[in-house]
Order: sequence, then C-alpha cells, then structure tokens
Amino acid sequence: MKRLYLLFLYLLIVFSISAQIETRKEIHIPDIPGYKTLKCDFHMHTVFSDGSVWPDIRVIEAWREGLDAIAITDHIEYLPHRHDMNIDFNRPHEIAEPEARQLDITLIKGSEITRKMPPGHINAIFLTDASLLKQDDWKDAVREAKKQGAFIFWNHPGWKGHQKDGVPRWYEEHSWLLENDMLNGIEVVNYFDYYPLVHDWAIEKNITMMSNSDIHYPTGMAFEFHKGERRAITLVFAPDKSQQEIKKALFAGRTAVMFRNNLYGKEEFLEPIFQNSIEILNKNITVARGDKLVLQIRNNSDLDYILDAPEKDAPYSFGKEVTLYAGRVSIINVKFSPEVDEKLKEVNLEYNVKNLFIDPETNINTTIKFPVIISK
Amino acid sequence: MKRLYLLFLYLLIVFSISAQIETRKEIHIPDIPGYKTLKCDFHMHTVFSDGSVWPDIRVIEAWREGLDAIAITDHIEYLPHRHDMNIDFNRPHEIAEPEARQLDITLIKGSEITRKMPPGHINAIFLTDASLLKQDDWKDAVREAKKQGAFIFWNHPGWKGHQKDGVPRWYEEHSWLLENDMLNGIEVVNYFDYYPLVHDWAIEKNITMMSNSDIHYPTGMAFEFHKGERRAITLVFAPDKSQQEIKKALFAGRTAVMFRNNLYGKEEFLEPIFQNSIEILNKNITVARGDKLVLQIRNNSDLDYILDAPEKDAPYSFGKEVTLYAGRVSIINVKFSPEVDEKLKEVNLEYNVKNLFIDPETNINTTIKFPVIISK
Amino acid sequence: MKRLYLLFLYLLIVFSISAQIETRKEIHIPDIPGYKTLKCDFHMHTVFSDGSVWPDIRVIEAWREGLDAIAITDHIEYLPHRHDMNIDFNRPHEIAEPEARQLDITLIKGSEITRKMPPGHINAIFLTDASLLKQDDWKDAVREAKKQGAFIFWNHPGWKGHQKDGVPRWYEEHSWLLENDMLNGIEVVNYFDYYPLVHDWAIEKNITMMSNSDIHYPTGMAFEFHKGERRAITLVFAPDKSQQEIKKALFAGRTAVMFRNNLYGKEEFLEPIFQNSIEILNKNITVARGDKLVLQIRNNSDLDYILDAPEKDAPYSFGKEVTLYAGRVSIINVKFSPEVDEKLKEVNLEYNVKNLFIDPETNINTTIKFPVIISK
Amino acid sequence: MKRLYLLFLYLLIVFSISAQIETRKEIHIPDIPGYKTLKCDFHMHTVFSDGSVWPDIRVIEAWREGLDAIAITDHIEYLPHRHDMNIDFNRPHEIAEPEARQLDITLIKGSEITRKMPPGHINAIFLTDASLLKQDDWKDAVREAKKQGAFIFWNHPGWKGHQKDGVPRWYEEHSWLLENDMLNGIEVVNYFDYYPLVHDWAIEKNITMMSNSDIHYPTGMAFEFHKGERRAITLVFAPDKSQQEIKKALFAGRTAVMFRNNLYGKEEFLEPIFQNSIEILNKNITVARGDKLVLQIRNNSDLDYILDAPEKDAPYSFGKEVTLYAGRVSIINVKFSPEVDEKLKEVNLEYNVKNLFIDPETNINTTIKFPVIISK
Repeated sequence: MKRLYLLFLYLLIVFSISAQIETRKEIHIPDIPGYKTLKCDFHMHTVFSDGSVWPDIRVIEAWREGLDAIAITDHIEYLPHRHDMNIDFNRPHEIAEPEARQLDITLIKGSEITRKMPPGHINAIFLTDASLLKQDDWKDAVREAKKQGAFIFWNHPGWKGHQKDGVPRWYEEHSWLLENDMLNGIEVVNYFDYYPLVHDWAIEKNITMMSNSDIHYPTGMAFEFHKGERRAITLVFAPDKSQQEIKKALFAGRTAVMFRNNLYGKEEFLEPIFQNSIEILNKNITVARGDKLVLQIRNNSDLDYILDAPEKDAPYSFGKEVTLYAGRVSIINVKFSPEVDEKLKEVNLEYNVKNLFIDPETNINTTIKFPVIISK
Repeated sequence: MKRLYLLFLYLLIVFSISAQIETRKEIHIPDIPGYKTLKCDFHMHTVFSDGSVWPDIRVIEAWREGLDAIAITDHIEYLPHRHDMNIDFNRPHEIAEPEARQLDITLIKGSEITRKMPPGHINAIFLTDASLLKQDDWKDAVREAKKQGAFIFWNHPGWKGHQKDGVPRWYEEHSWLLENDMLNGIEVVNYFDYYPLVHDWAIEKNITMMSNSDIHYPTGMAFEFHKGERRAITLVFAPDKSQQEIKKALFAGRTAVMFRNNLYGKEEFLEPIFQNSIEILNKNITVARGDKLVLQIRNNSDLDYILDAPEKDAPYSFGKEVTLYAGRVSIINVKFSPEVDEKLKEVNLEYNVKNLFIDPETNINTTIKFPVIISK
Repeated sequence: MKRLYLLFLYLLIVFSISAQIETRKEIHIPDIPGYKTLKCDFHMHTVFSDGSVWPDIRVIEAWREGLDAIAITDHIEYLPHRHDMNIDFNRPHEIAEPEARQLDITLIKGSEITRKMPPGHINAIFLTDASLLKQDDWKDAVREAKKQGAFIFWNHPGWKGHQKDGVPRWYEEHSWLLENDMLNGIEVVNYFDYYPLVHDWAIEKNITMMSNSDIHYPTGMAFEFHKGERRAITLVFAPDKSQQEIKKALFAGRTAVMFRNNLYGKEEFLEPIFQNSIEILNKNITVARGDKLVLQIRNNSDLDYILDAPEKDAPYSFGKEVTLYAGRVSIINVKFSPEVDEKLKEVNLEYNVKNLFIDPETNINTTIKFPVIISK
Repeated sequence: MKRLYLLFLYLLIVFSISAQIETRKEIHIPDIPGYKTLKCDFHMHTVFSDGSVWPDIRVIEAWREGLDAIAITDHIEYLPHRHDMNIDFNRPHEIAEPEARQLDITLIKGSEITRKMPPGHINAIFLTDASLLKQDDWKDAVREAKKQGAFIFWNHPGWKGHQKDGVPRWYEEHSWLLENDMLNGIEVVNYFDYYPLVHDWAIEKNITMMSNSDIHYPTGMAFEFHKGERRAITLVFAPDKSQQEIKKALFAGRTAVMFRNNLYGKEEFLEPIFQNSIEILNKNITVARGDKLVLQIRNNSDLDYILDAPEKDAPYSFGKEVTLYAGRVSIINVKFSPEVDEKLKEVNLEYNVKNLFIDPETNINTTIKFPVIISK
C-alpha cells in the first residue's frame, strides 16, 4: 500500500515513508586530495525504452545504494513498449527529477543512440533536449548531442550482441567520432563485463574511462547485494557533485572504474584512494631488535585490498600476502632483524595492490609507512 | 545489457539468461493430505496503475520467490501514470502472460476497484474482461465482477489511508456485499499489517482468509529478503495449481495466511502442515528407566516452529520451550522417570505451536509422537 | 595446520597468520566528551574451570569482535576438568597474556568466587594473585579480593540455577558486602538475560552496572554473529584503555550496559552517545513555508536507534516513528506549516529513543537540532 | 552460564539446552546406489595437544555442521600444553565419547604421529589404545597402529612447514609404508589446501583419498560459515555410519574429497551424486518444432554445479554455460530446431561439470536427460 499512500494522502506523507525503502548504504571509497570521490552510474533504462521500472525507481535505487549521480539513458531507437506508452524522450528525466531533488541525487539527462555496429550504442549525457536525438543518420544524432554540449561515450564495445566473440573492434566510425571530438568516453566496464582491450584503448587514445550498470531490471533483481555483489560504477573526481563539476571532470578524464572488488584507473587516483583508505592503529611503535610487531591496519573502504610484497632487501621481514579486509582491522606481522640499525626511523612496507589496476596487466605499487623507534 | 539482449537477438537467447535472475528459491511449506499447498499472492500493482514495474517483472519476482500463482490487480480508478501510458485494464495481464507460461506461474487476471471507504478497495480476480469494471457506481463494478464469475475480496480493511486509527470497520455496504455473495474473501494480512479483528470476522462470517503483498515497488526494494523478510502470501490448498482448482479452493475457503513466521488458519490445515514439516531422525528408540534421550527433529519447512508445552502429568519430562528451526535439525531433550512403566510403547510430547494461530488468540495444540521401547 | 605452524616454525610466522582469524570487526559506539567508550567483557571462562577453550582464544575472540578489554574469570570452587589439568588459578591469565600484549587487548586478571546463594557467584577483577581466593569461608575469599584492591561484583543475580523463578533476591549477605565496600558492581545483564530488578538496585544503591557474556563455549558457537547477535558487553567511559583507568572508571560507576540493540545507563552517558552517533547530511537548509524537507541522517553507530516523537506543538510536523539504522543513512521527513514564522532559525525534533534506557521503564529524551532559513 | 547450568543442575537440563547451540545444519550431498554418502572429518585437534578446545566441542561442532563421523587425532609428539595438562592419549576420545553417543555422531579414536619429513605427519584412526603409539622410532609407532588394525594416512604432504615451496615430495619412507600396507590413505586436501600432485598419486598408487579440516581453533573462528565457507570433508560411501562400515569403506577406497564447491573422486561416485542431486520439474514436456523450452531443474545438493556444454550436433541448442545453484531451481533454455524429427523421444543435454574432478585436470561428463513429445 505504500505507494498509493504516498500519492493519495499528501498530508500524511511525513509520517509514512518506510525506513526500509528509504535507507541508504553509502559506498566507502575515500576522497583524494583536491577532489571528492563521487560514485556514479551513467547508463540505465526505464519502461520508457526497454527497462522494467518507472523512472523514479532509478533514483531511489541510486540513493539506497549510495550513489551520488546517475544518468537515465533510455534508447532512442529501440522502444518495445511504444504501443503501451506515449514515448517522449525527455519524460524519464522529468518524471525522476522531483525524487532526485528530494533525495539529493544529481540526475543527468541522457539518451542512448542505439545503432548496429559500427558505431554500435552511444550514450550522450548532459543533454538539454533528448528528443532532438531522433535522427535518421546516426551521425546527425551524435552531432546534435555535441551541439547540446553533451559528453558522449561508446557503450559496451565488446557486447556479444554486436561482436559474437566478445572481442571489441575499433572501426573507422570510431576514429571519425574521436577526431571530431565526439568520443569523449568509453565503457571499460558494462554490467558484468570488463573489456581489457578497451582499457588499453582508453589509455592510448586518452578517452575517459567509464563503468556503468546498464541496468534494465530492478537492481535488486540483477545484483545479489547480500552476497556482496555491486553494480559497476564510475568514480568521478570532482570538487562537488554538481552537474557542471561532474561534466568538467568527465571531459578532463578524472574518473576510475569500480567493478566488483577492483579499481581500474590512473595511478594518480588509485594511489591516494588506497592511502586514504587505510589507517595504522598502533601508536608510538617502539621495538627491540629481533622483535615481532603486530601491525593493526584499519581499512575504511568497501574494497578488500589484496597485497603482495615483491622480494626486497630490508632489515625486517613482513607478510608477503596480506588482505586488508573492507571495513575491518587486519594485521601485518613485521619481524625485525636482530641486526636492525638503531637509526632506523621509518618502516616501509612495499606492496603491489593486486586489485588496483593502472592497465589490464599492471597493479599499483604502494608503500605502507610508519615511524618506529628501535629501542636499545 | 541483459534485457536488450533478450529482445534484440532472439537466436542467442538460449545461451544468455542469467542464472541469477532466473534462480528460484522455493517456499517450503509441505502439502497436506489431499491437497498441494500453493503459495499465492493475489494483490499487486504495475506501472499500469501506481506500481513501479513492467508487468512481466511481477511474474519473474514470483518465480524467483517460489510462488505458484499470482494475480496482477491494478487499480481501475487510480491511474497516476495515465498521461504517459495508454491505459488498457487488460494489458498488464496480457503483457505478463507469455513470461508466466514459460516459467509455469499461474497468472490470474484481476483488478482493484478503488473507492473511498465504504466500501474501500475491492479486488476481483479470475476476471475475463477487466475493462468492464470501469463503472460510475461501485456496485455496478462489483456486479460486473460477479457476472464474470470473479472471486471478490475486500482489501486491507484496516488501512490507515481509510481508517486513521488503523481499526477496521464493518459498514452496511460490506453487509450488502456479503449478502449478495460478492464478498468472498477478505485480507487478514496486507503488506506489513495483520488485522486481528478481520481474522475474527473471517471466522465468524465464514469469509475466505487472504494474505497478499499489495506490492507497488520492486519486491527486492520492499522486502529485505537477505534478513529473512518475506512477502505476505495466501496458502491455497488445492489438487493442482490450475486456475480452476485455485478458484474452487478460494470459493471453498481452503486457504491459510502466511505472514512473517506465522500461519493463521483453520486447524484442519495448520495441524497437518506442522506434522508434515517435521521428521524424527532417531531410529529404534530404546531407553532405560531414568535415561535421557536426545530427540533429533528435522524441520523441513521454512518456518521456525516455536513450541511451548503445557504442564501435564507424564512419566517423562521434556523441553518446555523449544524452537524447531526452519531447515535445520533441532533437539528436544526427554528425560524418562526412574519409575516409567515398561509397557510404555509411545511417547507423546504435547505442545502449543506459538506461531500457528487458529484465531488471533489461540494457537494450535499438537503432539509429537514416537514409539519407544523401555529396556529392562 | 595453522596453529602448529605458528608454534613450530617461528621464522615463518610473519608470513602466515590467516587474515580470517586475524580480522577485527570493531564495535561502533562513539566516544563521549572527556572519555573514550571502551567495549569490555569482564566475565568469561576457559578450560581451566568449566569453559571450553584454551585461554588465548578468549583474547583472539575479543580482538576479532572489537573489544578493548576483558577479564578471564575462571571459577575457584568449580573445577570439572581438574583430573585432566593442573589447576593454577593464575595460569589462564598468564597463558593469555602474550596474545593480549600482541593484539593490544587489555587483559585483567580475575576469578569467580563460586558459592551457593547467598551470596551466589561473585567476580573479583584486577587481582594480583588469584590463588589466594581459595578459602573455606566465602567472606575470607571476598576479603582477600578486597585486600588485593579488586573490583568486586555480583554475577547473574537472577540466574535460574540459583533462583528457580528467575527473580533476583537481595539477601543480608549482599547488604554486608555493600556495607563493607565489597559490592562494587552488579550484573544487570548476564549472557542472554537482562534483570530489570537488578537495574533498579544498581540505580538505588549506586552500584556500578555490569553486562558480561559469561561465555563458556567458543563465542562463535554461542552467538550467531551473522544474524547480528552480539555478546553482552559493559561500556566503560575512561580516558584510555589502561588497567588503571578502567579500574578507576569502574569504581566511579562510569559504565553502561550494551545488550542486543539496547543500552542501559545514566542519561549523562547515553545522551552524548546518541548525539555523537548521528550526523545530519543536509547542508545549508533553506525551505519555503509549506515545504517538505527530506532530512538525511547518518547513524555511525552499530545500534539501530528507534525513535518515537511525543505529541508537541510546533510549526512543523515530522516523522513520529522513525528508525535510524546502524551504519546507514535514514530519513526524517519534516513538513513546515504554511504559517511558519520567518524568524525560525533552528528546528528541534524531539524524540524518545526507545532502545536507550535510563531505568527499566524510562527512555532517554533527546532532540535532533539543525539550523534552518525560512525563505521568503 | 550455559555450561555451568548443564553441569551443575542435572535435573533441569532437559529444559535448558539452547536451540542455537543445538541446531544442526545438514550437508546435502545425496546418497548413491548402494551407499549412504557420509560426511566425515578424520583430522582435528584439542587442548590435549595443540588445539584450542575441549574435546567435547569437536563433537558439538561436528553435529552442528552436519557431519556424520569424526576422528580426534591429537599429536603424540607435539604437546605444548603438557605443563598444564595431564596428557593421556586416550583421554580426548574418552571425554568426547558421551557427547558423541548422545548426538549420534560416530567418534573414531585417532592420533597423529608427528615427525619431521620424511615421513612427516601420519594419522592413525580406529585405534584401540592411542598411548601405545608413543615410540622412539616412527616405524614402531606406525607398526603399532597397524597392529591395532588402524587405517593409516599421510597428512598434508604439501604443508609448507615441511616443504617450503609447498610441493609434496614422495620419499622412500613413503614407499616403505605403502609396500608394508601402512599407507592406506593420503590427504588430497588439508584445511585450505588442495594438492593436485597428491591427487595424482592417490589415483596412480590406488591410495584412499582423504580431505580433512585439521582444525585447531574453534571451527567458528577458522571458517566464515556465513560467507559459505566450509570445512574440508571426506565423503565416505558406506551402508551405514557404524565404525566398522566406515572402516571397511576407507580400506576399500570408497571416498571422495569435498572441498569448497568442488568434489574430487572417482567417476563412479561423482556421477551418481550429480544425477541424484538434480530433479527436472517440468512434467509431460510437449513442444512444437522451433519451440523454446524453459527447463526448470532443482538442485537438492549444497553444491553449485557449474556446467559447460561441449560443442555437439543436435536438433536442439541449449545453454552452453549454466550454473545449477545449490538448493535452488535453475533454468536451462532449450531451443528446438524447426527441423527437429518428430520421432525424437528423449533430449540429452551433455555437460561437463566444471566443479567435479576425476583427476586434477578432468571433469566428469554427464547427461541431463528427459523425455519429450514433438507435437505435430
């Protein structure tokens, strides 16, 4: 009866919204110097194209799941519900907008230009009038998007609906888009798929990396949240979550991909995320030569950090393979050599973080540092 | 991308449906002698009135959550999406029907006659043409439903939208309905509310007891399944899950209410459900006088049975307060008196089942029996 | 093989401790002005009396479960394992001590003086030599504890092993203890039992309130952590977690009881815990007359706060029954009257917190405040 | 207070045991023709060597976790608790025995002969007097075990405590054991490690495959059950769970390894386990040429079966990659060719089961069959 209640009886509304529906579980990925780390999803559908939910549901889902910003991007050319609905390409945004304002979710107007490959499916977000994207020629549709100042990105280049073998292919149409500044971003992750090749392209061609859910069903049906499953999101590094700052960040390439327990992105973003996630709890560490130290590290993020230490010469040995569990305090054992120099002032535990990727094959390398006093 | 994939590329469909979406968790409530115990929900909404999902989603949810039969019952008179949709009262059923056939869910055509109190909201199910229920006079709407052979029931009599204090009130309109055989059922449970007073009415007036979710949102948003939350359902006792047998069972009052961890209904249904749920695992029980016996009982149902033994005289004492956990083996300790008669052949553990109610105040009384040999 | 590995091969140890075993889930109850909020359990057993685990396990459990301090308090007079073990009352502490030092758990030496009622079971903690508590006369045992400077408290006064009806009874022996300053604390909660009567006693007689697990089994066997079950703990308000500060705090009565989702204690402790748990996320709130405001509140604690608003006259109405879920952002809807005075500068939402108790019948009353600008 | 209660107040015991402690979650792996599938763990420790729990806890854990039979196998030569305990190698079994009898767990007497490599650690189970295994020469210890009729197996051949690189090595000592019929079994899995090389040895040399937890801590501390983590177990195929039948089955090599979501063993055991786990729910399947069929399959086991279809020519296509989730109903889509022969009577879906291994590299191949009628 909830919904009816909401709509029928305006005066009672303040006493009625279910805490279950209206409870938000934030995503904990720390901010980095100069920027907030925004959690965004720029690709999703509603009943206005081939999705399964009314547009406001996308806002409520986003709020519940800890997102900061979303774009609803219904298809322009694919409209299976058109006999039952009066299709207006601006309506999904319009319908969702009041809920977004109330829940403080940044709602960006978007559409999906839906063509066969090449060029495939292309999202345009920050539109002013989505209905103008309905064009016979796909190039006209993209030109219109650009005219509206949209941020334009190529969706799921490895989608099996377009490439039977799941291998993304770069066509001259994409070169044309890129050369004309109409390929601002590209989905490195879509729904449950990560495309390493696209990751490489994004780096080589300097295209903004995107990661989106492309959700059609209710998210609670597509993701098993209780098993820790998450929707794919784009992390956007921006001073605040306003439309203009998100847009600026996207054009500037200030994003990273968050997919399952992994991040993919530039070292300049991933390294501070890691460092700002962890906190050493031991205070005033004083050890004698030959001592064992149990280092307690709190990981304030939602990611399990999987650490692996390369072989190095040091006056201390320490856990080679360690996982710093999300939201927990974990331990790294450090054993000091009986010959450790008393002048040692700082311990440097060098690790590869196996779930943070700067390219498909390379992990970030980081150092967990802490001061120490070697007692005599 | 799932949904698009499904719709666009028919030939690939057989390889693609996600196991996550398409996995069913059955509800374990055992059959009873002569009947299957069907799990049904006869009250729910879609975007065609004030719900949030496309009609096929209701079928997929039902399948995933272990239901056998559902009725989609969009409002006739309350249509907040009417500017965006071409409302046809038969369409929700029509749209959901192919999915229901594929997934083997019995889909019953219904509508909600949505009036102010009295008479309030009334569901009619097993309709042939829902569009004929659009009438100026609510009595005409109900008459039309009856004409179509519908099973008609009163929804959420204690809804705060109609009764500010949440107390159900019986009006002469309801007497009129009852006298004219147009009040075949009544919701003892709606969404998160159980109405004890309605339970009493159902018993006194011999009206079929209903329990429905009245879901508007996606179920995954309304219920925290991972915390064990469930949608309210009506158990229907019928030879099979065909439309005709469910209809016959409803008219015959062969239902029980399943709400949270409780069942509400007639003893003739609840007692065999309890007995068919449990299984004593000990074999060939032989005990000496004064012995302690650890009775292991498997509860094959999804309900935790909360047992409480009334004080009785017996040659054995046994656990007064015991819970037989759902899907687990639990223990009842039985201690035989040193004076127990060697002729004792059967042990009878008499219990009240605190979560099975034959009226709002009364639990069923049952006996867990097993043969025993008292060794000399 | 873990344990063997640890003990056999000292040099490899730094690479081997399992993250699973060595992961700590902190308990989030905020500090209050002037004090840290320490999470403590002062009553537990090991194989050295009738417990099931080796003493070091109690430290590991405490660390994993987010505790700051524990006391192992094996029985002096009840020693069912004495034929298999060489009982030394100081050994459990001694064995557990190295693990406690490594994991930075404050380990307090204790014992349980285990007599029939009256006086029942009495814990003495901060002992220097537990073996001296073995005395024929229980009064001598308590005198010895006092001589050692121990903090002495009465365990589970309502235990059914001592009071068949579960009702705590105060005997003259307890008056004697109290008069002689040998009844410094009392268990308001033990294991799964809360004793309201004892809560009253603690207030009237100004005895420090304790809440302890009294765990005998491994905690993972006794508590279903994955269902949110917790061990009962005593919150201690102290500047740090050193033995001396905890001791000082206990003697000063600076404790509260944390049991299930409830806190029991003085308003001066519970009110700041509540206020320091919550955080209003809306910034620069400006509303027009008649507006609805969706207030987003983050609850950083591990407690679900269950709020209920008493009826009051105010120029705004707001959610009467609201739950602020642990670790989540929840919503309070506030609706401003069309006649709200433009001079209004601050909104005060007055609530009873139904799960914070200052006595068995009384909840704390608190106010959620935030600045507002009424726009013209 | 639980334990004290149990021991102190015998008369009340029948009313008091906590359902939480005494609830058993069965392991669902079906029986196979001629045999029950017993869930067993033949390697674990208590405080009597280097384990952390009193022996009866091993029985309670086993019962709670759904096991049928266990062996407690404390070390003979490694006794870190010897200063606090009176070590008697038969005591752990003796102490645990009453609990095992009450809970109907088959408790097998065992010991671990604990030597450096070679020969490493060797378990002997079905002993009559464990104390006789204390011998200077390890060969004498094994000879004594054999004299007592024990089943003897080599533990964790790849343990890093013995082989720094984790690679199992076969020494002549093991050949000696094998030749003298004193190497009846071998651990293919120990705790969290699977040794593919040992799996190969077991096949080549016809040694019984074992899989054991080797648990030292409380199991609730070592395994995250709520995340689906399980202890490694040995499946034993025997007519019943008596000591003699388990012993016979072990000597006859009637075992399989259950580790995480995998089974390792002979095809003659794994194939019927798979077939007896699944159940096709569709009845009387009639399809037209070109039809799509949604096959609903219930998997009654606790294993997710991960299926992959090899490419084959057939008059129907069907899901290539399918997971049949544990305890759920999953779907296989089958699409019949428009040219399918009307004489087709049976559909054969051939699959590799990716988590059932007959050797380290080879999965079982199976066929899901069902009758079909091709309608005209």
